[in-house]
Amino acid sequence: MERTKFVLDQKQMPTRWYNILPDLPQPLPPVLHPGTGKPVTPDDLKRLFPMALIMQEFSPESYIEIPEEIQAIYRMWRPTPLNRAYRLEKALGTPARIFYKYEGVSPAGSHKPNTAVAQAYYNKKEGVKRLATETGAGQWGSALAMGCMMFGLELKVYMVKVSYNQKPYRRIMMETWGAKCVPSPSMDTQSGRAVLAKDPDSAGSLGLAISEAVEDAVTHDDTHYSLGSVLNHVLLHQTIVGQEAMKQMEMAGHYPDIIVGCVGGGSNFAGVYLPFLRDKIKGGKKNLRIIAVEAQACPHLTKGVYAYDFGDMAGLTPLLQMYTLGHTFVPPPVHAGGLRYHGMAPIVSHCYKLGLIEAKAEFQVPVFEAGVKFARAEGIIPAPESAHAIKVGIDEALACKESGQTKNILIALSGHGHFDMSAYNEYLTGKLADYAYPEEKVKEAQASLPKVPA
Amino acid sequence: MERTKFVLDQKQMPTRWYNILPDLPQPLPPVLHPGTGKPVTPDDLKRLFPMALIMQEFSPESYIEIPEEIQAIYRMWRPTPLNRAYRLEKALGTPARIFYKYEGVSPAGSHKPNTAVAQAYYNKKEGVKRLATETGAGQWGSALAMGCMMFGLELKVYMVKVSYNQKPYRRIMMETWGAKCVPSPSMDTQSGRAVLAKDPDSAGSLGLAISEAVEDAVTHDDTHYSLGSVLNHVLLHQTIVGQEAMKQMEMAGHYPDIIVGCVGGGSNFAGVYLPFLRDKIKGGKKNLRIIAVEAQACPHLTKGVYAYDFGDMAGLTPLLQMYTLGHTFVPPPVHAGGLRYHGMAPIVSHCYKLGLIEAKAEFQVPVFEAGVKFARAEGIIPAPESAHAIKVGIDEALACKESGQTKNILIALSGHGHFDMSAYNEYLTGKLADYAYPEEKVKEAQASLPKVPA
Repeated sequence: MERTKFVLDQKQMPTRWYNILPDLPQPLPPVLHPGTGKPVTPDDLKRLFPMALIMQEFSPESYIEIPEEIQAIYRMWRPTPLNRAYRLEKALGTPARIFYKYEGVSPAGSHKPNTAVAQAYYNKKEGVKRLATETGAGQWGSALAMGCMMFGLELKVYMVKVSYNQKPYRRIMMETWGAKCVPSPSMDTQSGRAVLAKDPDSAGSLGLAISEAVEDAVTHDDTHYSLGSVLNHVLLHQTIVGQEAMKQMEMAGHYPDIIVGCVGGGSNFAGVYLPFLRDKIKGGKKNLRIIAVEAQACPHLTKGVYAYDFGDMAGLTPLLQMYTLGHTFVPPPVHAGGLRYHGMAPIVSHCYKLGLIEAKAEFQVPVFEAGVKFARAEGIIPAPESAHAIKVGIDEALACKESGQTKNILIALSGHGHFDMSAYNEYLTGKLADYAYPEEKVKEAQASLPKVPA
Repeated sequence: MERTKFVLDQKQMPTRWYNILPDLPQPLPPVLHPGTGKPVTPDDLKRLFPMALIMQEFSPESYIEIPEEIQAIYRMWRPTPLNRAYRLEKALGTPARIFYKYEGVSPAGSHKPNTAVAQAYYNKKEGVKRLATETGAGQWGSALAMGCMMFGLELKVYMVKVSYNQKPYRRIMMETWGAKCVPSPSMDTQSGRAVLAKDPDSAGSLGLAISEAVEDAVTHDDTHYSLGSVLNHVLLHQTIVGQEAMKQMEMAGHYPDIIVGCVGGGSNFAGVYLPFLRDKIKGGKKNLRIIAVEAQACPHLTKGVYAYDFGDMAGLTPLLQMYTLGHTFVPPPVHAGGLRYHGMAPIVSHCYKLGLIEAKAEFQVPVFEAGVKFARAEGIIPAPESAHAIKVGIDEALACKESGQTKNILIALSGHGHFDMSAYNEYLTGKLADYAYPEEKVKEAQASLPKVPA
């Protein structure tokens, strides 16, 4: 019997999150206050986040214990499976070993609950009654809806209008878990009203939805803000995925040569690669390749600039040093909504700047082609975001076929595509279009990058 | 640490299916040829099914080895988890222990692939090139699409038209896995054309879709027919679920007092309960209760008659001794499409007749209420079919609260509701209606029960 799925007992579930900050070869640039240009202090952030998360954001500790209350909820679906993709290998005729770590078994269908549950827990513990957040395609909004429901918090989700209209099922999912969801731009915030006044038909953007959610939080006494990616504490919570994957690869008797994952804000992929990168930094496999895959329509790493920028469109957040296309950039409406964000997590950006990871940008038509190939071999229909990782994983496996090398390829399969079937329909009926890299719009957006006060 | 999820290593996955036939206290009534009234022979069925499946249908062996090729595919998602529903117990304030065996982790999102993969395998092995089948809500059609894709068979699915229109995502799922799917009634068969001639707007029914698929198979030389429930060999393949659940309950240190599952054709629930029933028959827990839950709109067990009837609307199948509402009965359009079938698996019917199992019928509004309660406690959003089982599981847990008894309740959670979110929306917005038991229509349908030739 050859094992296809490598399962860990719950006793083997990691009980700590891994924090890369103290292990980075150069320290992460500080987050700056946009008014003073000085590094932000925990106090500057406490209107938005609970202190426990703020301390995690800056923590010098390599490992942070996962509270039992959070572990108990993780155990409802964790540890998640790691599979050997025997059938895909055979379909490709490659000597490579392909593995995928699958987060789609969570009730929300993606990796997002790993941080949603943690964020809801810490907010609840500090007496917060209500959270506000934004969501693009709905993966994050639905995960936080589940997290808030589990700790008895109210939640309001500002959902990018184009997705709100295209993906009613994700909205209903949030409502099933008790959250309130409105299309963004909405009339409920100053930021939303300002955009609607100029353009009543605005389809919205993730940057704008963040502005609305942040404004909601600062204008409601009982409310905090919650972000589903980008920030250090979010990436931290996702490291449970990579730590599990390490144990499972060990069960499988192999160590990855290549790790590939899609990046929107960066948390899914960072969660998988950071524990392996720690190994590499500490003297492990030197030639381990870590490849971030972004949408060609939103190529933050490959075409962005490394600069201080706002996390949101309206400029309400602190300044983050990151690869950015400019905070006013609105990406073309590709189906991988989770990849449509102007910036990239500071930790991932820093890793890229230091040459610790690589990046590739992919068009959506070949990405869906890879997604269908995967579904026909492995059964699982991947989310369009995850299919970006599969595309590059397949390319690397085919390169092995060419070269005759038996490499171990680990794909971060962040979620399933059950709520993206209309996108698959477009692909299958030949109606799916590609969007060229919108160079002019990026130039325009980058012209309005904020100046850091001296 | 309290385990929430009980996981089996793939080495512990059952390698045999369990066949209840030789263990039944009274033999199952034979399947009859509608022309002669004599028991059908394997030869009578070989135009529809491969001989391996026909032999399983009548097998006197208690256990049948699962071929390695099928096991290899099962291992892509099996063993499936069994969870302790701690949060649901707490929400109900019950002393009962609630467990659920979850089949929603399969790529198709339900238990159906367990038999789909097996049926595709045996057909392929006997040289068949193409299968025809029907599907209601699409769970079966998508599972068989996956199974056929894995063994390189073509598949045509006749999908009940009301579901074809309401659930485009299930259709796209089938197409993603390479199947062809048409709405039934279709113009592609005699049975379909006859109905359309009388009623061009016919919404279709499962019984009619079966007629179309059977006709497709017998009129194409390279084609076999495949059924997703009802028949003995289908229930046989599903027993892997119950065998796993037994091992997992043992891991949990408890034995069920009550097993509850929804029944449409009966295969999901039989797959879970038959291995436990074997235990009971062989002298195990005497007071184990096994409760089948059906839709009030389609109450085959509680309101049907135990009689010989056709499996399909047009009367193309052999005669099965079963609880039936009459093969011409078209149930009201409740959302649990998988429960809208006029008959009940002969094995399940026989068990019910012998008093080995109980039955309850439930209305869909309280069923969705239970489904939302489950989702808000356990995260997983259940399929409307599975929510029927949850409803009765919760009722039994509340009865324990009343009586102060600590019973162990095992719920068969056959699938997730990701493709049923519009039904949840109807429920959440107060628009969901109940359908009274359609007594007159049943009387009419039962008046046309076939006469068995003497």
